[in-house]
Amino acid sequence: MKTRKITLDEKEIPDKWYNIVADMPNKPLPPLHPGTLEPIGPEALAPLFPMELIKQEVTADKWIDIPDEVRNIYSIWRPTPMYRAYGLEKALDTPAKIYYKYEGGSPSGSHKPNTAVPQAYYNKQEGIKRITTETGAGQWGSALSFACQHFDMACDVYMVKISYNHKPYRKMMMNTWGANVFASPTDQTEAGRKILAQDPDSPGSLGIAISEAVEMAATRDDTKYALGSVLNHVLMHQTVIGLEAMKQMEKAGDMPDIIVAPFGGGSNFAGLAFPFLRLNLEEGKNIRCIASEPASCPKLTRGVFRYDFGDTVGMTPLLPMYTLGHDFVPAPIHAGGLRYHGAGVVVSQLLKDKLIEARSHNDPEIFEAGVLFARSEGIIPAPEANHGIATVIAEAKKCKEEGTAKTILFNLCGHGNFDMKAYDDYFSGKIVKHELSQEEIKASLDMLNTPEI
Amino acid sequence: MKTRKITLDEKEIPDKWYNIVADMPNKPLPPLHPGTLEPIGPEALAPLFPMELIKQEVTADKWIDIPDEVRNIYSIWRPTPMYRAYGLEKALDTPAKIYYKYEGGSPSGSHKPNTAVPQAYYNKQEGIKRITTETGAGQWGSALSFACQHFDMACDVYMVKISYNHKPYRKMMMNTWGANVFASPTDQTEAGRKILAQDPDSPGSLGIAISEAVEMAATRDDTKYALGSVLNHVLMHQTVIGLEAMKQMEKAGDMPDIIVAPFGGGSNFAGLAFPFLRLNLEEGKNIRCIASEPASCPKLTRGVFRYDFGDTVGMTPLLPMYTLGHDFVPAPIHAGGLRYHGAGVVVSQLLKDKLIEARSHNDPEIFEAGVLFARSEGIIPAPEANHGIATVIAEAKKCKEEGTAKTILFNLCGHGNFDMKAYDDYFSGKIVKHELSQEEIKASLDMLNTPEI
Repeated sequence: MKTRKITLDEKEIPDKWYNIVADMPNKPLPPLHPGTLEPIGPEALAPLFPMELIKQEVTADKWIDIPDEVRNIYSIWRPTPMYRAYGLEKALDTPAKIYYKYEGGSPSGSHKPNTAVPQAYYNKQEGIKRITTETGAGQWGSALSFACQHFDMACDVYMVKISYNHKPYRKMMMNTWGANVFASPTDQTEAGRKILAQDPDSPGSLGIAISEAVEMAATRDDTKYALGSVLNHVLMHQTVIGLEAMKQMEKAGDMPDIIVAPFGGGSNFAGLAFPFLRLNLEEGKNIRCIASEPASCPKLTRGVFRYDFGDTVGMTPLLPMYTLGHDFVPAPIHAGGLRYHGAGVVVSQLLKDKLIEARSHNDPEIFEAGVLFARSEGIIPAPEANHGIATVIAEAKKCKEEGTAKTILFNLCGHGNFDMKAYDDYFSGKIVKHELSQEEIKASLDMLNTPEI
Repeated sequence: MKTRKITLDEKEIPDKWYNIVADMPNKPLPPLHPGTLEPIGPEALAPLFPMELIKQEVTADKWIDIPDEVRNIYSIWRPTPMYRAYGLEKALDTPAKIYYKYEGGSPSGSHKPNTAVPQAYYNKQEGIKRITTETGAGQWGSALSFACQHFDMACDVYMVKISYNHKPYRKMMMNTWGANVFASPTDQTEAGRKILAQDPDSPGSLGIAISEAVEMAATRDDTKYALGSVLNHVLMHQTVIGLEAMKQMEKAGDMPDIIVAPFGGGSNFAGLAFPFLRLNLEEGKNIRCIASEPASCPKLTRGVFRYDFGDTVGMTPLLPMYTLGHDFVPAPIHAGGLRYHGAGVVVSQLLKDKLIEARSHNDPEIFEAGVLFARSEGIIPAPEANHGIATVIAEAKKCKEEGTAKTILFNLCGHGNFDMKAYDDYFSGKIVKHELSQEEIKASLDMLNTPEI
């Protein structure tokens, strides 16, 4: 019997996170105050985040200890399995060797709890009683609800109203873990009331939900805010994925030539790729790391590298990132986790320095990839994950054309149990291509009056 | 860090199934022909099942080899993890040690693929091109769709119409794996047309869906039928669960005093319990094995042991089983997998011989148990699994009262990702007790004119 699944023992859960900032040839540029355009220090983050997370956000230390309490909760789903995708290889008739790390076995079904748990832990350590956050499709809100429940903290999730109405199962999941879920815009906040005054039937947006969650945290002593991607400390927490995968590749007696992961704000990609990128930066290896994004939200492949706001309404500091402009509204694709206008600061700098690559895929193509995967490997992937699979398929086909047997590793970041409607839409021909014209992107970027780099 | 998760290596997937019939002091009584009331032989099953499965159905061999091709597919989700439930123990403040085997990590989210895969495999071996089956809530239909896809066979699922309309996600999941899903009753079969002639708006029933699936298989040469529980070979395939769990208990340096599993037709319970029951039968150990059933469908705790049909419309042979009568219609509880009027033959004989125990739980109690579990352990269980958890909680509380530290192991047979509506109903107070009066049970049993034992 061929080995399909490479597992690790509970004792092999990493005890440190990897901070790629320590190894970057060009360090990230500082965030700027939107009023003064001066660099801001970590103290500006204190109303929103606990001190330990702020330290992690700005540190250049290479390794950060993972607390035992966090590893203990990680052990519910970690170490996650790594698979050799024999079925997909056969379906593609490729000489490539394809592996995937599977993060869908966590209680909320994605990689998001890898950072939700430590974020809840550090807040608890500093006496915080309640964490607020926003959620679109619900993956991040579910993960944080699960994490807060474990530390007996309240969790208030501002869920984009249209998602709240369309995705009741995700809301119910959060309720089951004891979280409060509000359809945003609400009348609890200044931001929400302002929107409702203009449009009582507002369907909400991620930008509005962020504004509400941030406002609630900033104006209350016992409450902080948590974000599920983009920030340095969030990306760093996800490196447990790649650190485990490296041990598993060693066990398999193999080493990836190509790493692939879907790209929303960067945490999924960073989680798998950064520990392997370390080998490029430290030991001169040449592992290609490819971020896969939707063609309808192509900040890495068609955006610009400049200062922009992290949110839509302009409440955050200005961050140096690849962006489509903070007013950019992506098409309503099913991969809700990839509908973000910007890329995390660290990933943006790495792309700018040509240390990583990016590729975009259109919507029908990614479902074709997901269905092929489900039928050849068994697991039905989340639509976000299908973007990575589409890149893998393209690379595996290239191997076939060129007659080369590359080793490809990708991040299967979540299962599609809550996304069956998306697959049904695909089968009924309702999934359409979202071609973005150069004019549309230019229109969004033209509205930016933030500093160029 | 305390060990929470006990894992096994892929190489430790069992290479044999355990057949408890070999060790039973009283062997199961034979099935009877409903017309002649004479015992029937295995040849009567030939139109519906491949020869190898018929052999497995009637064999008294103790160990049956698991084919490498089956173990290879098992390795997608097997070995499954076993957990020490520290969170639940703490929440209950009990001296009991609680462990659970988690089967929800399979592609379709339950233990059902453990038998779907070998059933598809043996059909494929014998040249069968298509398998038919029925499904209610969709767990079994999903598992068989996944399995048939792997062997490149067609799969026709007759899904009870009311479930087809209420549970579209399960249908879409089956479609994603390439299965054809029909809302039963259909106009494809005599059975379906007969029902539709009487009632064009019939919501369907599991009994009707079975009739349709059986008719399609019986009348076509290249088509066979598959069942997800009740039959001996199905129960036997599930013993991989208990065989793995025994290795894991050894690794944990512990041994269960009490085994608990939910009970529908018996495969879930048999899967975990039978390998441990072997120790009672062979070595004189005294491990209590408790089957947990819904109070609204209490065949084990309030039914009678007699011959009855396996289906509702009376197409199958007569089987010696604990039954509520094949006309019994259970209340529409969310645990669709436990809404079956009878118990598998082997489990029935074991209960008759007092070698196992049974307990029933009412509906609000099982959701209370499920929510406590989700909040203390992280995983949100399927409603079926909540019945087992309710028994575990009762036993753990007894340990607390008596000051004894029993070791309890239960089967967490599936996740609740497709059952969030059930939890929402619970939180909104819509889940009610289904008290069955003695008259209601008597009324169903009075309609039986099948032989007493």
